[in-house]
Amino acid sequence: MKGTVGELGEFGLIRELTSRLTATPAVRLGPGDDAAVVAAPDRRVVASTDVLLEGRHFRRDWSTAYDVGRKAAAQNLADIAAMGAVPTALLLGLVVPAELPATWPMELMDGLRDECDVAGAAVVGGDVVRGETITVAITALGDLRNRQPVTRSGARPGDMVAVTGWLGWSAAGFAVLSRGFRSPRAFVEAHRRPEPPYHAGPAAADLGATAMTDVSDGLVADLGHIATASGVRIDLKSGDIDVPAQMKDIGQAVGVDPLQWVLTGGEDHAIVATFPPDAKLPARWRVIGEVLAAGTAGPQVTVDGAPWERAGGFDHFGE
Amino acid sequence: MKGTVGELGEFGLIRELTSRLTATPAVRLGPGDDAAVVAAPDRRVVASTDVLLEGRHFRRDWSTAYDVGRKAAAQNLADIAAMGAVPTALLLGLVVPAELPATWPMELMDGLRDECDVAGAAVVGGDVVRGETITVAITALGDLRNRQPVTRSGARPGDMVAVTGWLGWSAAGFAVLSRGFRSPRAFVEAHRRPEPPYHAGPAAADLGATAMTDVSDGLVADLGHIATASGVRIDLKSGDIDVPAQMKDIGQAVGVDPLQWVLTGGEDHAIVATFPPDAKLPARWRVIGEVLAAGTAGPQVTVDGAPWERAGGFDHFGE
Repeated sequence: MKGTVGELGEFGLIRELTSRLTATPAVRLGPGDDAAVVAAPDRRVVASTDVLLEGRHFRRDWSTAYDVGRKAAAQNLADIAAMGAVPTALLLGLVVPAELPATWPMELMDGLRDECDVAGAAVVGGDVVRGETITVAITALGDLRNRQPVTRSGARPGDMVAVTGWLGWSAAGFAVLSRGFRSPRAFVEAHRRPEPPYHAGPAAADLGATAMTDVSDGLVADLGHIATASGVRIDLKSGDIDVPAQMKDIGQAVGVDPLQWVLTGGEDHAIVATFPPDAKLPARWRVIGEVLAAGTAGPQVTVDGAPWERAGGFDHFGE
Repeated sequence: MKGTVGELGEFGLIRELTSRLTATPAVRLGPGDDAAVVAAPDRRVVASTDVLLEGRHFRRDWSTAYDVGRKAAAQNLADIAAMGAVPTALLLGLVVPAELPATWPMELMDGLRDECDVAGAAVVGGDVVRGETITVAITALGDLRNRQPVTRSGARPGDMVAVTGWLGWSAAGFAVLSRGFRSPRAFVEAHRRPEPPYHAGPAAADLGATAMTDVSDGLVADLGHIATASGVRIDLKSGDIDVPAQMKDIGQAVGVDPLQWVLTGGEDHAIVATFPPDAKLPARWRVIGEVLAAGTAGPQVTVDGAPWERAGGFDHFGE
């Protein structure tokens, strides 16, 4: 495809973008009308919105448009899975500069479509407008299939804390990229394109999860949301948290304790949940801590009994 | 509220924004978790996304944050109504500069909430990120209540074309504002805060509407979408289109044929639909034209038998 977004025009852009989409049986009416219609067999719909900005959440020199699409879809679809729901649909609000090559939004859409495909969902609609900063606003929808939503507020003292998916890989990849390196590829790839374990969300609900979230801001920060919402303390056992050998190598090369990446790195969209102590967890879940009554310090996350002092969490308004 | 968005911080801002919200019985889980849960009794959910940018879709010197919120919600909720559905929920993706006064997003949220209230919906979630340009990305959800969605593609030769709601008021208000005037207030108000006839959407479905849309880009342009999707010609009778006396006065004052505003002015979010010729329409619907077979010129909209030559429609990528 030649030319810029401006040359293609609004309607041309929308036509080209929607021509790239595929549907699923849940899509009752796709793009092109005032609104889309999506099956919601559970009689409830789960919905979540995220916004990604160029320069803030992605860089065009580090990530292809395709990877931005995969990542933007992944972080929203992971939110749906983390409620115990099955992702069904995704809507895109897109801001693009007129001078942007038309291939960029096309490849973005390919990435959104392919990540939706992994999760069993489909892109069903959206809006494109012209503006200075590339902005990708995503809304994901999902269906609970008769499960009760697993919120952040149900963790109880005595529960196990278990995680599935990748932890710290994206942060390690970011550390590599920000120092000008392009390898090890596995970590760079993890930063460019997370792989959330979508199926683990509904599976966790079936396993009796009492609270759940996806790890978008970092394990300690996201478990902090569960601790606060549930009014509990969560204690992680560092010895039970796996740090891959290759991540240790990177840590040594760049002078960072790799446990920091695992505990505070976001964007891998692992799924972490609390389970009753008698839950039978398949091997894919790693038990990494336990839920305790909140002490005098109030709801918090500790590591080996002490607060994790190093920088954690991520305030999107900080620099 | 004192200070800026940056001083409030991401979590402070989210806390303050969500504290302003009210819920409806359809809200099964509101803001604060990975995703919201909204009732979808029909087993299908209707969903639509729009993006508004400062400087492009609104100006802070012309509209208050509250009015931007009302307008942003209205245009999305109108899309839901124009499918024949009842709006249920709204999600907000918000980009704000750190130096923006914190009151701005608060008043925006008040506007979103109040417009949702008019439509029977509620704000259930969202995301806020820091960026240069104020960006308001809205996703609205709705429920069909066992109605079939009324698309743009069902208009048939012989159908009547009827409209309900305001036409050209926002455009006339824009003409007034852009010439530096602040009155007549009714038109300036209409530009700042549209009043879509939400209930008319589901009502039209019950009246047998064969095609429907809301007027966001202008009557001729939006009927053009119906003409194209349905493969028909739509002929409007200018003598049946009401131009209020006060609008004629403004037209004379600024040297514009007010029929131009009525036919091509967008953003009032009137609802226009096609109905079988034997449909019994209540007085609130004004019959303004008819559906004809597409001639050799293909699907098109004509006024009194001829194409409407003056500038129509609105390409968001044009200047």
